[in-house]
Amino acid sequence: MDVEIITIGDELLTGHTINSNSAFIAQRLTDIGLNVRYISTTGDSLEQMEEAFRLALKRARVIITTGGLGPTDDDNTKKAIVKVFKRNLIFHEDVLDNIKKRYAQRGIEMPAINQNQALLPQGATFFSNRYGSAVGICLVENGRTFISLPGVPQEMKQIMIDEVIPYLKGLKNNQSLKIIKLRTTGIVESKLSELITPELKLKTGVKLAYLPSYSGVDLRIIATAENDDEANEKAHQLRRYLEKVVGKYIYGAEDDTLEGILGQLLKDNDKTLAVAESCTGGQLGMLITSVSGSSSYFLGGIISYSNESKIKDLSVPADVIDNFGAVSEECAKSMAQGCRQHFESDYALSITGIAGPTGDTENKPIGTTYIGLATSHSTYAKKFNFGSDRQANRTRATYAALEFLRREMLDIK
Amino acid sequence: MDVEIITIGDELLTGHTINSNSAFIAQRLTDIGLNVRYISTTGDSLEQMEEAFRLALKRARVIITTGGLGPTDDDNTKKAIVKVFKRNLIFHEDVLDNIKKRYAQRGIEMPAINQNQALLPQGATFFSNRYGSAVGICLVENGRTFISLPGVPQEMKQIMIDEVIPYLKGLKNNQSLKIIKLRTTGIVESKLSELITPELKLKTGVKLAYLPSYSGVDLRIIATAENDDEANEKAHQLRRYLEKVVGKYIYGAEDDTLEGILGQLLKDNDKTLAVAESCTGGQLGMLITSVSGSSSYFLGGIISYSNESKIKDLSVPADVIDNFGAVSEECAKSMAQGCRQHFESDYALSITGIAGPTGDTENKPIGTTYIGLATSHSTYAKKFNFGSDRQANRTRATYAALEFLRREMLDIK
Repeated sequence: MDVEIITIGDELLTGHTINSNSAFIAQRLTDIGLNVRYISTTGDSLEQMEEAFRLALKRARVIITTGGLGPTDDDNTKKAIVKVFKRNLIFHEDVLDNIKKRYAQRGIEMPAINQNQALLPQGATFFSNRYGSAVGICLVENGRTFISLPGVPQEMKQIMIDEVIPYLKGLKNNQSLKIIKLRTTGIVESKLSELITPELKLKTGVKLAYLPSYSGVDLRIIATAENDDEANEKAHQLRRYLEKVVGKYIYGAEDDTLEGILGQLLKDNDKTLAVAESCTGGQLGMLITSVSGSSSYFLGGIISYSNESKIKDLSVPADVIDNFGAVSEECAKSMAQGCRQHFESDYALSITGIAGPTGDTENKPIGTTYIGLATSHSTYAKKFNFGSDRQANRTRATYAALEFLRREMLDIK
Repeated sequence: MDVEIITIGDELLTGHTINSNSAFIAQRLTDIGLNVRYISTTGDSLEQMEEAFRLALKRARVIITTGGLGPTDDDNTKKAIVKVFKRNLIFHEDVLDNIKKRYAQRGIEMPAINQNQALLPQGATFFSNRYGSAVGICLVENGRTFISLPGVPQEMKQIMIDEVIPYLKGLKNNQSLKIIKLRTTGIVESKLSELITPELKLKTGVKLAYLPSYSGVDLRIIATAENDDEANEKAHQLRRYLEKVVGKYIYGAEDDTLEGILGQLLKDNDKTLAVAESCTGGQLGMLITSVSGSSSYFLGGIISYSNESKIKDLSVPADVIDNFGAVSEECAKSMAQGCRQHFESDYALSITGIAGPTGDTENKPIGTTYIGLATSHSTYAKKFNFGSDRQANRTRATYAALEFLRREMLDIK
């Protein structure tokens, strides 16, 4: 059952906005075993939408569109639906009441223009929108399921998760599917493959995909079978194999994040953390604090961007910097130690490196980075060689630091 | 002249990877006046590529594809080109030499498999790839221009900017185009429109688009005319009008970034900056230091995530926190002052707020944020009310802080 996702918006065609809606929808559909065969972007004009809708109805069984459901005259999705499906728009009193109530709750009167959003295609069913006034639209015709959602990400995501995914699960054929995603870090894809492949015996209906990103490589297991128990068993059998051969690199599964996993470890063990950052400039602190509730284990950090700050704020001895340089194992250890003492935390992580594009020397190319860790019983540091891209270097160093502490806490060598 | 962008990759169809390549290409094409009418995503299989290529050749004059040009058997773009255009693959000795040289420079021997990348479609022309071994391919047939680029972002971008854009400029019809992008911040789109619209008189061939994002609202002027001088004059006339009515919100143009503009201001005035962050956890420091060369003006920062850290590291009096709370004008001012004294910087910015989803009180809903600024002659703070999304709140606070300092330095009320 092939799916086409159509994202509507001139701002996508001009490249002003990056298309995150399609990735979100595609991932959710893939997770329930649907095959996304086409992702298309079209413009806001009625003509372009019509063209895209007609094409999709020819080549896909399920079509999901985003955008164009606002109240203004430029919002053409419903007009395109009316033309393509040859339906009328019918006024829905209950939908209007809901929209009015939404505005009343914010203490405002509903602008007259929003009445348009209660005009909906005849014969369609609707998905509630918790965060906005545009209801999701669902039309079934000639074996095709056509769903139109608002383009505002927060609204689209809520309707997808609460309404559309459960709805589509009911449409799928009866083959059972089990998907397991294992999240690894600290190892490149080719090395991971070298460890996995030798003893890998894939059963029929079991696939393994490698999905690399800056934070590491995700391993996605997709198992299909006649029934749920069989699909589950096949998937878990592969999972057990992967845990056996590359378990030390697996930090979590599904939607786990490295910063979330580390936060949980700190919480569970009642430990605290502080950070001392140079080249990452605050990115490590930002990532750690992106986890809601991190204030229970994260005490704070020093962005020691200058050598003066390393010396003054982290008590790094001036001669460490003179003799070894700010980007060195010695400096990283000293930064971590000073940070731990300053914040009186259980752990302190430090990052010092050459992010680029300038700053490299003969012995230290761009990407040379040291990550330090101070604990209650020791202080040590490790050298990393990232690449030549400033942004990538800073991001990779940030994730490498999180992993550095995770392995210390779990005693992984 | 309609353009279709085809991004190839199963990881796009499963939603694992967000499609940033299409946005990059679309923006560059739009900037030279080409009309991107279609953006399509297809899978890695030969069959899917063939289908996508054939469709694009029917409906667009210029087609740009990314992906599938690697050396392995899974890389099918050239095979699809061969089938669709009915051409042979020819071996190019010079291309092979280049690939060998690239590996030699890294001290490695070229893997045998990479010989495939010297097999290229007959009658095509090629674009050099500075960062990888896959050359860009360009085929012209029946009035269609078909360009295939590698999918690796760094490689694709380099070839687009250095080779493809200059090439395509030559293909365009002779109408003159002038595009000016003005970047505003600190004002929402509807308010900006209220200020602009009353006296706005758009000439024929002049369009104005509002492009909002977390960092602010971009204003894009597109002027078309018979010749360059006329297009330039129309565009600049509108620019002068916009600078007159909303000039205080315009921080830059084209690819200027708020962090880059602020960095330049600090450099030009020989001033230094330090930061004290609570709810943003390091994001402000990260953004400031994302600018290469920021070490010349950025001294460092304190991530004072706990109240203890605010008191100890920023000398915020305990009774300020007791009486007014950590999220208050008084605390923000105190944090900024303490930060400035600590780092001995000319300026210090502070951010303290309730990012959410927890932490709100009756008087202080999620999104309540104070940004403080300490200068050599005064310390003051401003209250902001962002939204309900943790990530968005942190990002908007970060940009608001940069703007806060920009306006102080330029004496904008």
